[in-house]
Amino acid sequence: MTDTSTLVQTYLAAFNESDEERRRALVEQAFAEDATYLDPLMSAAGTAELTAMIGGARAQFPSHRFVAGDRPDAHHDVVRFGWHLVDPDGARVATGLDVASLAPDGRMRSVIGFLETAEG
Amino acid sequence: MTDTSTLVQTYLAAFNESDEERRRALVEQAFAEDATYLDPLMSAAGTAELTAMIGGARAQFPSHRFVAGDRPDAHHDVVRFGWHLVDPDGARVATGLDVASLAPDGRMRSVIGFLETAEG
Repeated sequence: MTDTSTLVQTYLAAFNESDEERRRALVEQAFAEDATYLDPLMSAAGTAELTAMIGGARAQFPSHRFVAGDRPDAHHDVVRFGWHLVDPDGARVATGLDVASLAPDGRMRSVIGFLETAEG
Repeated sequence: MTDTSTLVQTYLAAFNESDEERRRALVEQAFAEDATYLDPLMSAAGTAELTAMIGGARAQFPSHRFVAGDRPDAHHDVVRFGWHLVDPDGARVATGLDVASLAPDGRMRSVIGFLETAEG
């Protein structure tokens, strides 16, 4: 499970990185070159679009951070993991669930994201 | 959301159908011809494998039924939905979460399933 946890941490680090160059490097670490991402609000395909998409999300919440939710749950080449968006005081303002299919090299190839409708 | 709910009901009906011919018909209604399925215990690709895979699952729990969990949550061409496996008395013996990508015709093209580790 260590590899999966590391992958999720890298993914969240990309979402928390405001510097574009560093964000792109984290995207390259977390996602395969041709990776796709789709959640209710955003979509992207490939390293450049992913880097720009995450930059757009960051610009909306410049002082917020994404933090890991429950321990990732993986089987075969798929993983699901939860996350929270927290404000500068650490209060949760959004919670989501992502499901990723992994490429043979262990990076994410396809991510489908869902938003929880209520906080618990 | 009605179409999604109907799709999930058809999917669960396939998992509850012990007659192979009727099960195959439900599989054809719920899944695209080249659909794939992957959960921690089982995998299949295409109508014939899906029909056989579900038959194998049914044989393990002949008197149990799959019932829908929370209302399905859909966006774009993806949907997530929960289910419970209940025994003849209606007690839950397992709970899962499935995430499906849909084909243009609305049938499932790819299903990734996860099992919950604790009952709530």
